[in-house]
Amino acid sequence: MKKEKIIMNKNKGKIPEPTIERLALYFRYLNEMKNKGMTIVSSEDIASRTGVKASQFRKDISYFGEFGITGLGYPIHQLLDKIADIMHLNRRHNVAIIGLGNLGTAFAQYKGFSKWGFHISHIFDKNPDKIGLVYGNTVVEDIKTLPRNLETVSMAMLTVPASAAEKTAGLMLDSQVKAILNFTGVNLSLPESITVRNVDVTNEMVVLMYFKLSGGVEV
Amino acid sequence: MKKEKIIMNKNKGKIPEPTIERLALYFRYLNEMKNKGMTIVSSEDIASRTGVKASQFRKDISYFGEFGITGLGYPIHQLLDKIADIMHLNRRHNVAIIGLGNLGTAFAQYKGFSKWGFHISHIFDKNPDKIGLVYGNTVVEDIKTLPRNLETVSMAMLTVPASAAEKTAGLMLDSQVKAILNFTGVNLSLPESITVRNVDVTNEMVVLMYFKLSGGVEV
Repeated sequence: MKKEKIIMNKNKGKIPEPTIERLALYFRYLNEMKNKGMTIVSSEDIASRTGVKASQFRKDISYFGEFGITGLGYPIHQLLDKIADIMHLNRRHNVAIIGLGNLGTAFAQYKGFSKWGFHISHIFDKNPDKIGLVYGNTVVEDIKTLPRNLETVSMAMLTVPASAAEKTAGLMLDSQVKAILNFTGVNLSLPESITVRNVDVTNEMVVLMYFKLSGGVEV
Repeated sequence: MKKEKIIMNKNKGKIPEPTIERLALYFRYLNEMKNKGMTIVSSEDIASRTGVKASQFRKDISYFGEFGITGLGYPIHQLLDKIADIMHLNRRHNVAIIGLGNLGTAFAQYKGFSKWGFHISHIFDKNPDKIGLVYGNTVVEDIKTLPRNLETVSMAMLTVPASAAEKTAGLMLDSQVKAILNFTGVNLSLPESITVRNVDVTNEMVVLMYFKLSGGVEV
């Protein structure tokens, strides 16, 4: 047991990004299985439901120590606990939406984030018509109130127009927000103390068209 | 010249996916530079603007033959033409939005797709209150009119609830749509003749939280 723990900690910084992305995928499907009353799952089950190869699943899981019962499969609750622990899903994360345009509004209205522990705690916009609107229990605030201390915010979803991206990201930096999910399509210049992940729907469309028209299949 | 062409075609199926994703990124920045009146760009310029290493940029571009002028850089118009050609950006792509919920509505209202040649040609929903609404020049249609021949549609953006994902993807298959950008969070079971790309915002949030809390920095 002790040995496993050491291995885990040693490997912590070395887990490949695609493994982390797949863990999120496994977590979703394991939860669905649990909700259906299942208790044990085989790597082949996981494979057929997630589109990941069974061998890849076993490799991904092996980063985190020994799992499973030979010939039987994996106890679902144990896998869920482990993934939740590794991925920090066993706690609440406050999320700020910065920019209440089309995409920001879609996120403000979406009810599905809470299942994953994400809670929209702040919404900011510069438009006087939007300031004061309420989504869930969250009142839209004037972005002019920034920077101010937003240490309790785990993550900002940056959904402002591209032209405002750099300036607004700077406001996040000055407000002690340490992680940004960046939908602006702009490559943000920020210190390494801020973790940034870019989501660009247009880029995804372009890449999809490439794979379609070049005959490649992307799963 | 002939030799280059052969090499390009030979490599076509072997271009790594991350290279394809970065080409979309380069295209965006090269267009910005062109619009500012620039004509030549160095790999270091590209690097500082996109966050990709200059050596990576040179390697990515090398998949497509010889480029650039030693000591001077790359002619921007030539790079743009080449990337547009490789990525099939030099034509119009009709896009269908399937499901006019929060995310589908955000995409229907977004004006930025046309710059990339994407045109929202069809919108489908099952809600009678939404059928008949007009976005741009596109009227929202009843999803009950599917399946029918949608061969002119290059891509469907699947923005229905998870519970309707499989059934609606089946309608796309039966309507001759060959590419799906899947926002439902469901792993779709479809034949290989359909190219699917998954975009899952919640997964992106989870992965971002992991990298933030594990001290990793993800760009």
